[in-house]
Amino acid sequence: MKTATQRDINALFDARSVAIIGASNDHTKYGNWLSVQALRMVETHTVHLVNRRGEPVLGRPTVRSLAELTEPVDLAVIAVPAQSFEAAVDDALLAGARALVGVTAGFAETGAEGRAAQERIVAKVREAGAVLLGPNCLGVIDSTVGLTLASNPLPAGPVTLLSQSGNMALELSQFLSEHNLGFARFASLGNQADVGVADLIRSCIEHEGTHVIAAYCEDFGDGRDFVAAAAAAREAGKPVVLLTVGGSEASVRGAQSHTGSLTSDTAVIDAACRAAGVYRVNSPRELAGVVAMLLSCPPRPVRSVGVLADGGGHASVASDVTTAAGLSVPEFAPATQAVLTAELPPSAGVANPVDLAGAGEQDITSFGRVLETMLSDADVDAVLMTGYFGGYGEYGEGLARREIETAHRLAEVARQHQKPVAVHTMRASSPAARVLAEQGVPVFSAVEDAARALGILARGAAAPRPPAEVPAALPAVSDSYWEARELLAGAGLPYPAAEMVGSADDAVAAAERAGYPVVLKAMGLLHKSDAGGVALGLKDAVALRAAYAGMDGRLAAPAYCVEAMADLTDGVELIVGVQTDPRFGPVAMVGLGGIMTEVLEDVAFALAPIDAESARELLESLHAAAILHGVRGRPAVDLDAAAAAIASVTELAAAHPEIAELEVNPLLATPSGALGLDARIVLAH
Amino acid sequence: MKTATQRDINALFDARSVAIIGASNDHTKYGNWLSVQALRMVETHTVHLVNRRGEPVLGRPTVRSLAELTEPVDLAVIAVPAQSFEAAVDDALLAGARALVGVTAGFAETGAEGRAAQERIVAKVREAGAVLLGPNCLGVIDSTVGLTLASNPLPAGPVTLLSQSGNMALELSQFLSEHNLGFARFASLGNQADVGVADLIRSCIEHEGTHVIAAYCEDFGDGRDFVAAAAAAREAGKPVVLLTVGGSEASVRGAQSHTGSLTSDTAVIDAACRAAGVYRVNSPRELAGVVAMLLSCPPRPVRSVGVLADGGGHASVASDVTTAAGLSVPEFAPATQAVLTAELPPSAGVANPVDLAGAGEQDITSFGRVLETMLSDADVDAVLMTGYFGGYGEYGEGLARREIETAHRLAEVARQHQKPVAVHTMRASSPAARVLAEQGVPVFSAVEDAARALGILARGAAAPRPPAEVPAALPAVSDSYWEARELLAGAGLPYPAAEMVGSADDAVAAAERAGYPVVLKAMGLLHKSDAGGVALGLKDAVALRAAYAGMDGRLAAPAYCVEAMADLTDGVELIVGVQTDPRFGPVAMVGLGGIMTEVLEDVAFALAPIDAESARELLESLHAAAILHGVRGRPAVDLDAAAAAIASVTELAAAHPEIAELEVNPLLATPSGALGLDARIVLAH
Repeated sequence: MKTATQRDINALFDARSVAIIGASNDHTKYGNWLSVQALRMVETHTVHLVNRRGEPVLGRPTVRSLAELTEPVDLAVIAVPAQSFEAAVDDALLAGARALVGVTAGFAETGAEGRAAQERIVAKVREAGAVLLGPNCLGVIDSTVGLTLASNPLPAGPVTLLSQSGNMALELSQFLSEHNLGFARFASLGNQADVGVADLIRSCIEHEGTHVIAAYCEDFGDGRDFVAAAAAAREAGKPVVLLTVGGSEASVRGAQSHTGSLTSDTAVIDAACRAAGVYRVNSPRELAGVVAMLLSCPPRPVRSVGVLADGGGHASVASDVTTAAGLSVPEFAPATQAVLTAELPPSAGVANPVDLAGAGEQDITSFGRVLETMLSDADVDAVLMTGYFGGYGEYGEGLARREIETAHRLAEVARQHQKPVAVHTMRASSPAARVLAEQGVPVFSAVEDAARALGILARGAAAPRPPAEVPAALPAVSDSYWEARELLAGAGLPYPAAEMVGSADDAVAAAERAGYPVVLKAMGLLHKSDAGGVALGLKDAVALRAAYAGMDGRLAAPAYCVEAMADLTDGVELIVGVQTDPRFGPVAMVGLGGIMTEVLEDVAFALAPIDAESARELLESLHAAAILHGVRGRPAVDLDAAAAAIASVTELAAAHPEIAELEVNPLLATPSGALGLDARIVLAH
Repeated sequence: MKTATQRDINALFDARSVAIIGASNDHTKYGNWLSVQALRMVETHTVHLVNRRGEPVLGRPTVRSLAELTEPVDLAVIAVPAQSFEAAVDDALLAGARALVGVTAGFAETGAEGRAAQERIVAKVREAGAVLLGPNCLGVIDSTVGLTLASNPLPAGPVTLLSQSGNMALELSQFLSEHNLGFARFASLGNQADVGVADLIRSCIEHEGTHVIAAYCEDFGDGRDFVAAAAAAREAGKPVVLLTVGGSEASVRGAQSHTGSLTSDTAVIDAACRAAGVYRVNSPRELAGVVAMLLSCPPRPVRSVGVLADGGGHASVASDVTTAAGLSVPEFAPATQAVLTAELPPSAGVANPVDLAGAGEQDITSFGRVLETMLSDADVDAVLMTGYFGGYGEYGEGLARREIETAHRLAEVARQHQKPVAVHTMRASSPAARVLAEQGVPVFSAVEDAARALGILARGAAAPRPPAEVPAALPAVSDSYWEARELLAGAGLPYPAAEMVGSADDAVAAAERAGYPVVLKAMGLLHKSDAGGVALGLKDAVALRAAYAGMDGRLAAPAYCVEAMADLTDGVELIVGVQTDPRFGPVAMVGLGGIMTEVLEDVAFALAPIDAESARELLESLHAAAILHGVRGRPAVDLDAAAAAIASVTELAAAHPEIAELEVNPLLATPSGALGLDARIVLAH
């Protein structure tokens, strides 16, 4: 049996002979809509229609079953009732089909029984060396070879769309159409029983017609494979733009009810997207905008945006929404301002935002010169143009002609500079705005859409950095505090001197060896602090004995640990943890520790294991990162030591698949090093 | 001389006899566009056209000046070159005009000279008991009386639009039109030289035709008056929806260049909006969506949203964007789920989000029953419907008819329950979607727009709470640390025992009276901590003398303060400050104090003075508020004491107009009270 990757995913796209099983004359059925689309292919492909009664469909003869055919079939689309699906699969495989498209629903998404049937069918398909798209999908299109095997037609273009929802695919294609964008390939993912999103991304890397891959996906299957495939696509110049769910408990409930998907936490998906160089969006409209931006110029870092407006209100509102999108609108260098001052009237804004203040009405070609000036400034990474452009042509034929010429000029300037230019206009369907869109300058009918597209472009600009391989498994460990501590110390994370004790006398003896002040911890509790199982700063034997007696009376713990008390004065308490995500495997979490972890929820995630450099970047990405660098007279902590400690914790956790959760909180970062002050292991069931 | 409020703002709207000064046949001039619109009024109003050459305009006779008329004019719109503007104003006032609309630009927005000319003209207008809208504005419309004195026509409807930008007004009206919304009144604010946004809001309170007030405004003039006017309008059932700037340094630059506006920090504007019960939006499209929602049902608290979708993808994406908009999508109570389960197919989602899973295709009337069930759940505050509704009618005439009937039913259900219902559909221009919009159910073509409108509705739902009057001024104080401390202690904020000293011996004597450990602070430094002018936790005379010698050697401060060291163990360091905003007066700021202030920037604002209840709400609104309630075994702080301390600081600052900035950082909140640990006054220049 071969995996989908070893078999030939391209069989879904390069079939010469295709069959629609379940062809129908009933206008309310997929078997009808698919047949209508399939018959558009007859010039380039052999198309067979299969109808169980053998009735003519759409005026064409049909066969009752593929067994009636004398020639082999490359690809079969199956749109029959669920109870007949398996027999249709058998027929298709017998007829030599190397690719199956399962439109029929009623499998894994309906529960355990449907899942079992689906697994049985997939096994057969794989045994035969074929591939299956779906079931519960809408079909497949490859406009570069004229393959139209989906319920709806789509215009041709540079985008490949992979979608796990039918209506979402329709809406995505609608928003992409507003940007004049059509499709190279479309594959409806359905239940991803055999062929998954990663397989399809990989198949598009070699596909000439695909320039950008847009995906709506609820379940990533093997998440690490998704990351690898998307990173490879990005490296090949075909970035992936992803719309997914998991941003709320409600969407997780929704996805489970919808496709029975195993969803991941949204922070984990963000971490995966960073690793894969995937642009993550939050809505269908955002997806279309980002795809349009990516097609307009190659990925590059975007931080500073120049705002070009033909009115003061638009200049200011655009500046605010651009800033809200995570970008900056910095004041231009004096040289740039000087050029703009020479070009524009005295009341114009030239510092950024630029307000043409009537220059557009006076001479519409000033738009082109101002854009050229802005893009020529090396400190300007991108331009957002906003306002009335496209509406000037309403004031006369001559102006309409000059406005269209200016649109061509704007597109030319944008192309020359290879910097992102997003245009918002109140007249998005005007002839001049249409010229911009046709010439590859994305046009938006609301300014915040342009700003958000630039913001997402900026967030996704960094090159992919897939995580290191999960290391080979080390011998399994237990979940005891002492073993966790030893394991971490062995991995290179220093801990204060400590001893396990079983009596107050032993505790005092241990404290004398460690040196006062000491900490006393009760063993066998999952959350020691919350249960009153931790006593800090015990100054002498009297205090230690009192704490021991109190704790033992309340908790009757099986054992206690006496530890030297670390000096917290100039330290910052961090947390580092590793959890196992069902799809993406071990995931590292870094944040402010101690009580601040739950108070601030200031944490950052990355697929584990991570190296010290990535650990340091995670620390720097914290909202409260300034505290690590020293504020108001406090010294900076040793970031290298903290990062190395974090890296070693993530490597250790990744090498222990039996550990569901490993956490060090607090991890004390000090000006001179890093010290573990606690350790916790939760084993997988 | 009377203020605009004492004079009659309504003269702008109730004029019977109007004149266009600067009427023109040149299609590129405002004087032409205004004349075209004014001539639409001739059935109901007397319209005079004034052309300086006395040429007929648009085929109508003109006069060279208003002096040629024998009858008085109520309202004059002036669209002449800037150098002729003042003379036109004189003519109009002589002709008896009680209201002037200054379309002419070239005044305060151009600099000091233009500002002086503008002030001179305003003085004349006020002296004559008239009012002036603008200059630098686009005109005025009152569709309820047929007054059409703006450059563009606008459809009639329930919205009054006040705008400080011409293009922004055009764009706002465009987005409002997409929601089928027209205008009761439109006033272009221009430079607000005489009549300001607050005056116009107040004039709309009594205006029957106005149901919602939409405003784009860069400068609020007297900010407290704006708050009072908007709060009064809200109380009268006419909420204000505000688009403004100030969310970025760039927009502040832009507004200064545009209208020479004094802008406020965006956090201050947010505080003012909360006080005024104003709904603040971030873009023209958002404004239109929120206006539509407000017209659909009265303001009410919104927290829990039910999501109704006809596809799993849409259900999940809608849940995520709703959550991102600050709302919750909680699981329904079992009773509601049971009703939905009985109504829908087995594969449907019934827990929230609801996924009809084919029920819409089976029987489109199920939309109405499901919405009814969701709105009947007392825990559901609002519903977001998302997906394909409006597209079903494409599959046949019968279905098209039933879909429109269902749209009527949905609107009826929404009206009955008086809860917000926002509809996103992929088919926003379909007949069924148009029925929804006409029947008052807002329709959005992207799901995030619907979610954000609900989110803004929720944030603005609280009733207005205008701040207390700024108290009468107390005798002025100096900016010394000691005086600040005494002043605050006198206002009811306890401070640790302290003494000013001038020598190490005096310091030791003071410390013995206060009790060790003590704190030593150097005087005369703005930021003592940063300069090394604070030594904490000095345990004995030796430590104190060492600290004194070190500090005196480095800083040679004019004096030192010795203070008892507070016990920080169970306390939380807060900051409370009051600053004076140029528009909104004293503004209180509350947040986490000490080093956390700059590390976290976790602060909240309110117009000052605030009472203890408001202070407590500000504390609770902090991101890190959980720390005040005790976490991981820490005790809760005395919130009443902290809130009372904050309130007294804000009252004190508000009573001292000479203080530009008063700050207590840290304000130590402990389980048993609140204690000032520092004090800082910055005087206004």
